[in-house]
Amino acid sequence: MALRRTVSVAGIGKTKFGAFADRDLRSLAVEAGNKALADSGIGPDDIQAFYLGNFAGPEFTTQNHLAPYISTALGMTGIPSTRFEAACASSGAAFFHAFLAVAAGIYDTVMVLGVEKMTCQPVPRVTEILCGAGDCGAGGEMAAGSTFPSLFAMIARRHMHEYGTLREHLAAVAVKNHANGFLNPDAQLRKLITLEQALNGRPIADPLNLYDCSLVSDGAAAVVLRASDLCGPDAVQVLGAAQASDYVALDQKRTITTFPAVQEAAFRAYSMAGVGPGDIDFAEIHDCFTIAEIVATEDLGFVEPGRGGFAVFDGETSRDGRLPVNASGGLKSKGHPVGATGVAQVCDVVRQIRGTAGDMQLAKHGIGLAQNLGGSGASCVVTILGQSGRGEGRVL
Amino acid sequence: MALRRTVSVAGIGKTKFGAFADRDLRSLAVEAGNKALADSGIGPDDIQAFYLGNFAGPEFTTQNHLAPYISTALGMTGIPSTRFEAACASSGAAFFHAFLAVAAGIYDTVMVLGVEKMTCQPVPRVTEILCGAGDCGAGGEMAAGSTFPSLFAMIARRHMHEYGTLREHLAAVAVKNHANGFLNPDAQLRKLITLEQALNGRPIADPLNLYDCSLVSDGAAAVVLRASDLCGPDAVQVLGAAQASDYVALDQKRTITTFPAVQEAAFRAYSMAGVGPGDIDFAEIHDCFTIAEIVATEDLGFVEPGRGGFAVFDGETSRDGRLPVNASGGLKSKGHPVGATGVAQVCDVVRQIRGTAGDMQLAKHGIGLAQNLGGSGASCVVTILGQSGRGEGRVL
Repeated sequence: MALRRTVSVAGIGKTKFGAFADRDLRSLAVEAGNKALADSGIGPDDIQAFYLGNFAGPEFTTQNHLAPYISTALGMTGIPSTRFEAACASSGAAFFHAFLAVAAGIYDTVMVLGVEKMTCQPVPRVTEILCGAGDCGAGGEMAAGSTFPSLFAMIARRHMHEYGTLREHLAAVAVKNHANGFLNPDAQLRKLITLEQALNGRPIADPLNLYDCSLVSDGAAAVVLRASDLCGPDAVQVLGAAQASDYVALDQKRTITTFPAVQEAAFRAYSMAGVGPGDIDFAEIHDCFTIAEIVATEDLGFVEPGRGGFAVFDGETSRDGRLPVNASGGLKSKGHPVGATGVAQVCDVVRQIRGTAGDMQLAKHGIGLAQNLGGSGASCVVTILGQSGRGEGRVL
Repeated sequence: MALRRTVSVAGIGKTKFGAFADRDLRSLAVEAGNKALADSGIGPDDIQAFYLGNFAGPEFTTQNHLAPYISTALGMTGIPSTRFEAACASSGAAFFHAFLAVAAGIYDTVMVLGVEKMTCQPVPRVTEILCGAGDCGAGGEMAAGSTFPSLFAMIARRHMHEYGTLREHLAAVAVKNHANGFLNPDAQLRKLITLEQALNGRPIADPLNLYDCSLVSDGAAAVVLRASDLCGPDAVQVLGAAQASDYVALDQKRTITTFPAVQEAAFRAYSMAGVGPGDIDFAEIHDCFTIAEIVATEDLGFVEPGRGGFAVFDGETSRDGRLPVNASGGLKSKGHPVGATGVAQVCDVVRQIRGTAGDMQLAKHGIGLAQNLGGSGASCVVTILGQSGRGEGRVL
């Protein structure tokens, strides 16, 4: 079905990511929301609907009913205000629904905000809460003792078996993303690491070690989306966006070295944008674990299946490579407040396209892609952004 | 902004509501979803997007990421599958967003499903989880020791003070809804009570007693929404739908005897449908507490402010009254699996309009209204349904 019009990102706003003992969930969200309003040059009265992405605020902080809790604190009352949850793709899902609503002409101006406050809980409880994104049913993977590191360890092990991916390839993702995050003033962990260090991190779930895992973080990110004709000619446009789903339990999937939801979302987003993987200049990819970035580069069509590990090791996805991936530092270095990540990726892509990414700025930054994953591949949102509309405007 | 087309309810499906020790959340959801598919005569492959309403599944059952967890079990993979949360209006919010997507032409056919599994937790923990829908921040109402019964007790006390509402008026809501629920084979509590009994229930939060409070329930409800031109001429149409928001904390509101979010959602839904309160033949209203039904009849414009208690006491909202309210038994007798309630109300309205409500069938059933409330009025969804389109098709 044809969409009516193109949609642009009128403003972006992000908090630093990190462990902030003195900040509660709402204060982070309000900071990001106000920054996005200021960046877009509009006031809270102009926002017609509020789309909140949050994975597990009630479990981390006891506060539920978070959408009006946050939107009223931003000065917005009366409007539809709703929380969207799709595990770690929660704010990606909120963004996708908000984009469709503006593209279809339901609203002219909306805010999408992602937030998570995780460091208020001890690590074992954080792990337990994150397990909720997998299959917690009787006889399911979590009842069997899995955690997300162990699920992605199985994915890594299988990828090694099928394609000859090496432990060094995983380490190369960590080295690259730490190097990129070192240039990001808002990153949680600004620390250069060597391949040697990345190979010898504290064991977590073999073959994954500490350096293969993303961070436990507090943070928020927001965007204002508007009909493009209400924005200036330089506003970054959403060229394509798509969300797809798949089985939650790893053991229900036919293969675990590829994620059909990523492939499906990518196919639809590329089709809507009228571009292919070869047209993408740079990407922010959901590297919750190093292996996840490797698999995603394959599922997004950036490299042939099985070549993701070799590509990162060979520098193809480095800052100065053919297709820079996670110039922001990724979830690995920038941080991963799960409900904020999807919108944060969009903010990072927009800053690159605008040419205002500071030390992180890439040479080629015309068209960028953000890929936000939920669980072990059961949810995925892919968003393609660029300076000028090239899309066909179809929802496939 | 004008919507493109009208939307109809192609199929409905509900589980019984109750305490089902042998049923998990997903099995309830799958039962309701499959019934809605069967009722609509389509298969899972025809569903283009899945909208799940659920308030607190992760806290009640540990399972999060519920949308693909349920949609894949219904045989739907690949499609956008997202959970919507707006406290007790969660599935109302899911319905509203799904309705807009079909009305705007984004999708032709979608499923909206609401579910909650509550009885697996002991009552004190249930109360604690429900508190998440209020303000749990430092210095907030919940930190001060409130619970939802105590918040609505304050609303009742103030309503009595301002308008002369009597304890007998609250009791009359309970007597009416229990009498209605006695006719509903799927109700959780089929038990006739007298005014005397309703006045002398076990104290909960003065002036509310046990009979003023809705139930802790397990249950699910689902609808298939389609573009009207894909449905038969007899399909029940969504004439109007709107969602609105307000402050979460009771102490932030200017008045607590009226809910601006309900008034706003009602105004927008009436405007979209091109009808007024006088055109509504019957309503399903969010009677989480007896006082909530009284306030809602005022905010929806069915009676003058302050007359809600008198109206129910005088029988105006009884089955044979001027405007029957909660012919299903309401949350009070039918049960209140919070995330399921919004869609369950829509199912009950559709059955009345179809004329297939069995012993519950009302004489006048042309246009029905469903009102779904979240928290102490911070979220509200109002939906107006009828056999033929009268709407202007505008989103206000």
